[in-house]
Amino acid sequence: MFNFGWMKKLIFIFYMFYTLSAYCQKKKDNTELIVALMKQQEVSWNAGNIEGFMKHYWHSDSLKFIGSKGITYGWQNTLNNYTKAYPDKETMGLLSFTILEATALSETAVYLIGKWELRKLKPSSGHFTLLWKKIDGNWVIVADHSS
Amino acid sequence: MFNFGWMKKLIFIFYMFYTLSAYCQKKKDNTELIVALMKQQEVSWNAGNIEGFMKHYWHSDSLKFIGSKGITYGWQNTLNNYTKAYPDKETMGLLSFTILEATALSETAVYLIGKWELRKLKPSSGHFTLLWKKIDGNWVIVADHSS
Repeated sequence: MFNFGWMKKLIFIFYMFYTLSAYCQKKKDNTELIVALMKQQEVSWNAGNIEGFMKHYWHSDSLKFIGSKGITYGWQNTLNNYTKAYPDKETMGLLSFTILEATALSETAVYLIGKWELRKLKPSSGHFTLLWKKIDGNWVIVADHSS
Repeated sequence: MFNFGWMKKLIFIFYMFYTLSAYCQKKKDNTELIVALMKQQEVSWNAGNIEGFMKHYWHSDSLKFIGSKGITYGWQNTLNNYTKAYPDKETMGLLSFTILEATALSETAVYLIGKWELRKLKPSSGHFTLLWKKIDGNWVIVADHSS
């Protein structure tokens, strides 16, 4: 009989390598998915569809939006603030995001730093940091700090 | 002989329960530790010791500080901004933090939302969101968004 001990070891090493690379791949894919979701947010905003834009925020009273005026708690209050500040397509302008960094902190949490720009008559811009979490199988923003 | 099958199961269940509670405990302790570190930051600041305050920031060029003026990259640049904006004890005032939420995202990442207040002749205040990470065994702020 041949000695297959080394082959078993080799298979084990390949298996570990495969598992590890699959794990890293998954982490990477989550950040790519989130970048794609933010692309959808731009599209919604630029179609004047704030509710579509808000679809990617956690539909919960525990959602937190931190801005220069302090903290807003909850999805509905955040939507109300948006519709008050941006009542029509002219005030909404043309939104573009620049993603500066997206880091997977776990299988269910991604931290993202980016820049937002609104092209319009009176252009405005700023930075944001987002905490995305996978809740009930969907990736949503649970905290947004924009300044 | 007695049948110890049920006892083995019981021991296994207790073991699982113990492991799970130890895991949760550890997560909780991390956020408590970070709250304690932020207490140290207040003490340093209020002693006019900005370098002591900065000890809890990641000593790396990859540290990110996001403010109303945009992003500052790196520990040294962040320190320079602080010493420029707060040249003496009078401008530094008396700092107090209010921690609104501290969430463990993994064994090595904590997301924290809070409020800062500077009591002085011209008081100022705002909110911050911090990403703390455990790097080389130490908990440090890797991203600070203050507004």
